[in-house]
Amino acid sequence: MGNSIARSAVAEFFGTFWLVFGGCGAAVLAAAFPELGIGFLGVAFAFGLTVLTMAYAVGHISGGHFNPAVTVGLWAAGRCPTKNVIPYIIAQVIAAIAAAAVLYAIASGKAGWVPGGFASNGFGELSPGKYSLAACLLIEVLLTFFFLFIIIGTTSKGAAVGFAGIPIGLALVLIHLISIPVTNTSVNPARSTGPALFAGGEFVSQLWLFWLAPIVGALIAGFVARWLYEPAEG
Amino acid sequence: MGNSIARSAVAEFFGTFWLVFGGCGAAVLAAAFPELGIGFLGVAFAFGLTVLTMAYAVGHISGGHFNPAVTVGLWAAGRCPTKNVIPYIIAQVIAAIAAAAVLYAIASGKAGWVPGGFASNGFGELSPGKYSLAACLLIEVLLTFFFLFIIIGTTSKGAAVGFAGIPIGLALVLIHLISIPVTNTSVNPARSTGPALFAGGEFVSQLWLFWLAPIVGALIAGFVARWLYEPAEG
Amino acid sequence: MGNSIARSAVAEFFGTFWLVFGGCGAAVLAAAFPELGIGFLGVAFAFGLTVLTMAYAVGHISGGHFNPAVTVGLWAAGRCPTKNVIPYIIAQVIAAIAAAAVLYAIASGKAGWVPGGFASNGFGELSPGKYSLAACLLIEVLLTFFFLFIIIGTTSKGAAVGFAGIPIGLALVLIHLISIPVTNTSVNPARSTGPALFAGGEFVSQLWLFWLAPIVGALIAGFVARWLYEPAEG
Amino acid sequence: MGNSIARSAVAEFFGTFWLVFGGCGAAVLAAAFPELGIGFLGVAFAFGLTVLTMAYAVGHISGGHFNPAVTVGLWAAGRCPTKNVIPYIIAQVIAAIAAAAVLYAIASGKAGWVPGGFASNGFGELSPGKYSLAACLLIEVLLTFFFLFIIIGTTSKGAAVGFAGIPIGLALVLIHLISIPVTNTSVNPARSTGPALFAGGEFVSQLWLFWLAPIVGALIAGFVARWLYEPAEG
Repeated sequence: MGNSIARSAVAEFFGTFWLVFGGCGAAVLAAAFPELGIGFLGVAFAFGLTVLTMAYAVGHISGGHFNPAVTVGLWAAGRCPTKNVIPYIIAQVIAAIAAAAVLYAIASGKAGWVPGGFASNGFGELSPGKYSLAACLLIEVLLTFFFLFIIIGTTSKGAAVGFAGIPIGLALVLIHLISIPVTNTSVNPARSTGPALFAGGEFVSQLWLFWLAPIVGALIAGFVARWLYEPAEG
Repeated sequence: MGNSIARSAVAEFFGTFWLVFGGCGAAVLAAAFPELGIGFLGVAFAFGLTVLTMAYAVGHISGGHFNPAVTVGLWAAGRCPTKNVIPYIIAQVIAAIAAAAVLYAIASGKAGWVPGGFASNGFGELSPGKYSLAACLLIEVLLTFFFLFIIIGTTSKGAAVGFAGIPIGLALVLIHLISIPVTNTSVNPARSTGPALFAGGEFVSQLWLFWLAPIVGALIAGFVARWLYEPAEG
Repeated sequence: MGNSIARSAVAEFFGTFWLVFGGCGAAVLAAAFPELGIGFLGVAFAFGLTVLTMAYAVGHISGGHFNPAVTVGLWAAGRCPTKNVIPYIIAQVIAAIAAAAVLYAIASGKAGWVPGGFASNGFGELSPGKYSLAACLLIEVLLTFFFLFIIIGTTSKGAAVGFAGIPIGLALVLIHLISIPVTNTSVNPARSTGPALFAGGEFVSQLWLFWLAPIVGALIAGFVARWLYEPAEG
Repeated sequence: MGNSIARSAVAEFFGTFWLVFGGCGAAVLAAAFPELGIGFLGVAFAFGLTVLTMAYAVGHISGGHFNPAVTVGLWAAGRCPTKNVIPYIIAQVIAAIAAAAVLYAIASGKAGWVPGGFASNGFGELSPGKYSLAACLLIEVLLTFFFLFIIIGTTSKGAAVGFAGIPIGLALVLIHLISIPVTNTSVNPARSTGPALFAGGEFVSQLWLFWLAPIVGALIAGFVARWLYEPAEG
């Protein structure tokens, strides 16, 4: 309301940069530190807290999407103007690539470091727990569906005002608690794209799934939520 | 208020599906991942965050029970209309079974996976720490009592408005931090029923306790809370 | 305000029972479970979440002390009527003993279980990390001082309304993150008394410190906070 | 606003003491406790919760900086009067040194204890993961930039009122989840100064980086945020 698209896109850039740098940074730098590492539990909190913190910092400017699937799902739910969709997604993808580049620069400041998967998402042989393509596709659709369901529900009419950033951020913590072993958790095509470009090879060729599945899940949620939260008038 | 029972039951379906899929999913997929697994601490957060997130997403539609014991306890406290009780419990149980089925499909997407207990609740030989039936019965009654006590208290007149979803969700985190080693933590008959049907055998024959104990604890809380939060007028 | 002391004392009973059962229960039952145990981090969250949850559930009835040191500190700060002090402390101590008794009954439902320290507090040889009496005394005074400082500050005029239960509960998480290795963390004479009666022997003879230090810290905080939060009028 | 600088500086003293004692205390006393230690994840929560708790306790008195970089960044953003800058920084540094001294006294109450790095920050050979000076400089600038960005955004016009302490505190949790392996995480020159004086030697000679980098990051954030949150009037 009175915010230019440029200003909103800048907010999306910072928010998505934080999501990818913070979440993937915790995974790459701290998850497996000997003895004291934060493990998948710490990585789950890192991803979720990026969204919780930025939702309160820039949510009132851009809506706080930080994720092409969220932008598409909110558009399907009638909550995001069509003219915002492409600029938001461009800002998000650029931010994700920039964040991965800066993380790469920092991580390589340790002698002998090798990027490995570099916190990329993957299925089959590239799944942390070697889950099949079908299992990975199903869980990404399902979790993105619920992520959008919660985003739309917590910001719907009648929901407690001001609180939404807490359940939305913690939903992303929860989603990672469930699915890091399966796909390394995407539910966010931008988050998948940034690291994959630096991990290269197979990780890039699997990116299609992490665009397709989150967007399908988000679209379904958008339409379901439109019915659940805006029932037909009598 | 203006919400049809059908719409409320759909909300209960999604909320309970999320509780069972998220909580049991974290347990089955991520708890014991080599080196980096989330352990009981991560599972405790997963269960609690399903409730915290859905309480804010659909609490204003259905009340956000996601649990037959909660529905019964709130009914005893005079907070849930009698006509809602059966539809809610049916929606919750169907959702729990559906969530367990989807989780089974995903988990079996890993070569060589065996379901084992599949995050089911159990006592005696099926208790994670081999606790006796009496200990398991006692702790389930006690913890469900306190869960309902907190739910009723945080939504009572005079309590801070809008906050209840936070202490309610975190109460479920806490309950799991205490009792996963004892019963794998139920306090929710629907959550117990879904996975048990897939684990089969003894887990099914022990289900009676995870219906009986939570409902007894919830009923006691409903009557205590009715007295504590609604003192007799002078 | 219209609450009888009896009703407030009942609220203190339930809150303190929950604190001791939940915090010590997590420590006794779940902290050291093989492979998947919650560790000191999980115990820290358990203690803090007992207070966070009950602060929202009964804070509007009794003030939500659950701790004789809190009652004394708030009295010193001019926030608790003198006539409440003794009834509150009696309710808290009875609740702590009852909670320890129930926990003992449940924990002994595992074949071969031995109580050991039973989550009691201790110094010197009974300190988890074998810290000296002086170190234990100092840290208990200091941490109780800050606990009361935060309780009084977050509920003072000008602080954000409705939020206090969150920082207060999380302050107790933090206090445990720091000091479990030193004294097993008290900052609460009632919490110390319950388990010590069941652990027996030396743990009982060390109880004096866990009454003295928290109350001294709380009194100092009460007087400091009275000055900081209620500056003299010009 | 009616608060004298002296009263505000006292609030900053207590808040910064708590940050350094709580965060470094968790690291020194509890992180590496055998079997049950809290690890980097617990230390991350400890640092963040010091800020979350004190933001609600004294934020309405002093603004709740507890960090010279925050004071400088808020000054650059036009949110902190110039006359407060020096008194705040003095109070913060004195508090950090006092907290480190008290922590040293307590930690040395364990027979055979050696201070080691004493939770100091470092780069190169003194970095926990042996990261290069350039990587350490870059990550400290970047993380302090985002910390200030979140502080300014969550307290800007249009942001949800009363909530800011939650995302600000959790942002510090997140920052530690990412960067403890790199620099042991500073983003706060006072926090770096206190422990370094007790660790001595090389840790003191590396302090320049932990004054320079956080302040540079904070200044950039102050100017960026000034543009983002206060766009030019048409």
